[in-house]
Amino acid sequence: MTHFSELDTPAVLIDLDRAEANLKKAQDAADRAGIALRPHIKTHKLPFFAKRQVELGAVGVTVQKLGEAEVMADAGLTDLLLTFNIIGAAKRSRLKALHNRVTIRTVADSAECVAGLAETFTDPAHPLGVFVECDTGMGRCGVQSPNAALDLAQQIIAAPGLAFAGLMTYPAAGKYQAAAQWLADARTVFSTARIDLPAITTGGTPDIWHMDEAARVATEYRPGTYIYMDRSQVAAGAAGFDDCALTVLATVVSRPTPDRAIIDAGSKALTSDLLGLTGHGHVVEYPEAKVVGLSEEHGTLDLSACTSKPAIGDVIRIIPNHCCPVTNLFDQVHLIRDQALVETMDVAARGKVN
Amino acid sequence: MTHFSELDTPAVLIDLDRAEANLKKAQDAADRAGIALRPHIKTHKLPFFAKRQVELGAVGVTVQKLGEAEVMADAGLTDLLLTFNIIGAAKRSRLKALHNRVTIRTVADSAECVAGLAETFTDPAHPLGVFVECDTGMGRCGVQSPNAALDLAQQIIAAPGLAFAGLMTYPAAGKYQAAAQWLADARTVFSTARIDLPAITTGGTPDIWHMDEAARVATEYRPGTYIYMDRSQVAAGAAGFDDCALTVLATVVSRPTPDRAIIDAGSKALTSDLLGLTGHGHVVEYPEAKVVGLSEEHGTLDLSACTSKPAIGDVIRIIPNHCCPVTNLFDQVHLIRDQALVETMDVAARGKVN
Repeated sequence: MTHFSELDTPAVLIDLDRAEANLKKAQDAADRAGIALRPHIKTHKLPFFAKRQVELGAVGVTVQKLGEAEVMADAGLTDLLLTFNIIGAAKRSRLKALHNRVTIRTVADSAECVAGLAETFTDPAHPLGVFVECDTGMGRCGVQSPNAALDLAQQIIAAPGLAFAGLMTYPAAGKYQAAAQWLADARTVFSTARIDLPAITTGGTPDIWHMDEAARVATEYRPGTYIYMDRSQVAAGAAGFDDCALTVLATVVSRPTPDRAIIDAGSKALTSDLLGLTGHGHVVEYPEAKVVGLSEEHGTLDLSACTSKPAIGDVIRIIPNHCCPVTNLFDQVHLIRDQALVETMDVAARGKVN
Repeated sequence: MTHFSELDTPAVLIDLDRAEANLKKAQDAADRAGIALRPHIKTHKLPFFAKRQVELGAVGVTVQKLGEAEVMADAGLTDLLLTFNIIGAAKRSRLKALHNRVTIRTVADSAECVAGLAETFTDPAHPLGVFVECDTGMGRCGVQSPNAALDLAQQIIAAPGLAFAGLMTYPAAGKYQAAAQWLADARTVFSTARIDLPAITTGGTPDIWHMDEAARVATEYRPGTYIYMDRSQVAAGAAGFDDCALTVLATVVSRPTPDRAIIDAGSKALTSDLLGLTGHGHVVEYPEAKVVGLSEEHGTLDLSACTSKPAIGDVIRIIPNHCCPVTNLFDQVHLIRDQALVETMDVAARGKVN
């Protein structure tokens, strides 16, 4: 039996029991709310957990990149939603290859994107499902109004090789009610135009425990981070530190002053993501410690508030601000249970940049 | 001939002529200043460029991780400096294996680190060179005073299998004069104690063009970023945008509003590193554009100050805030010359977390 503290650092640890509890809690909440769950694999990037999510009741998974979709299809996942505007012939060709072997649908928020898809997908007998992406307050991609969604849906409907799949949004964190109102308005617009809305898919871990409210207008929920949770989700009230399944194991490599410790986990292990927070993570063993600085390979801890302090050679665990990009930095993660190593697993969908 | 704009995005482009010019300019400056150059490979992570740096006159290279050292040794680099406290038996064992096949030296800033090295390296006929790491203002690792440096040097000297190599520092950007004063004070302390200082190694691209001043007290300079340069170095006055050799090629995938463009390069392509800057990069083709937001796969551009604006499907190049962690996010980089693809190269030392 290998205790996690024996692993070389820095390393990513995944607590299997916590991850499983998070998966079940969300699936139960979705079941109770009567909304389909389609988890985003960007957080774990592992077919192992994608399959487990489907076993527990998810209708399929969400991916953000064609490369992620290819990994999941190769691993036997059969129902994928690619929530990213696919632009350019090279990417459309890869999407077509996927469409020929699994159920995959995508999104569009512009006439240009739909026109490209319509050029590549031309078979009315096997149309590509396309959602209209809606900007319900996030300020990222998406059509700006329900009427614009209707216009784009009509363009999709007019393309013989495309099938209008419904509306997709990624709502701004904490603004699920505004997003729901936007989608309710869209329902009215589509209803007036007598255009069926096969599905409305929304998401986001920060508001995951309001899935029952999302279910009043949406039919599907796409959370990602919920499997591992992280410091930003704790700050958002979606989890406690005891729910966090992913930690970065680090070694104290220097204690240059009484109040400073340097660990071997910097921005190349924890990322520089702040997500509105101060500091770069929560130290499990020394919760009063502050991760005040990161350079690429060094993390700087302020121990001034700590009653006990770590020594050189001690290993500590950090709950990062944002777990999703952390798994993109490591070729492997270590699955643990009761502090013991169960398996070291390749992060199959890491680094799938396109 | 493949024009860079035909490459799938996001992608990292390296302009070979600019990189070569940056390498030569720094080597020339080092030669004029009479200081040895030992480039840090963390920026490019490529044996190709490490070898070129040595061909141009570098005395060897600097690495931050054992995994990086192993990649460089495998590629034929023979003189390595590992500027990170090596803690723990597993890592010391890897260091010993490297020591048995190439010239590799390391650093220490604590009695604990030296004691561990002394336990593993015991052969007086083939001692491990160890520098004392000094905190000359960076506030990261390093002994806190010249007298503490002397104490640690004496511990190294007392260990039969270790050889005292000198002093190593990574000075805070813009504070090279304070660092030089610290090192000059240390020279006095060591001279009084009649202990030879075989070398004093310092570094940093932000102050690279003050190498002549560094040379007054230091014998070696370890710049990393200078090969590619980036937006933070432009802000520091160490480069102009026309010197920047690394760009991230991205496609405009959405134009949801007249002033907003969304590109397919987010924090998983550009990183969230701000380094004190506002915004996440410089857009080469649209210098008035602001990269105002990043999520993992989306970059948000504010085009309100732009006279012309990119359309969906257009490709643009971003000079990132910090180029070094960008090369850690991509399995491959594309080497270009005169806008044409020369070679696509695996980033051999990417993801070497330990």
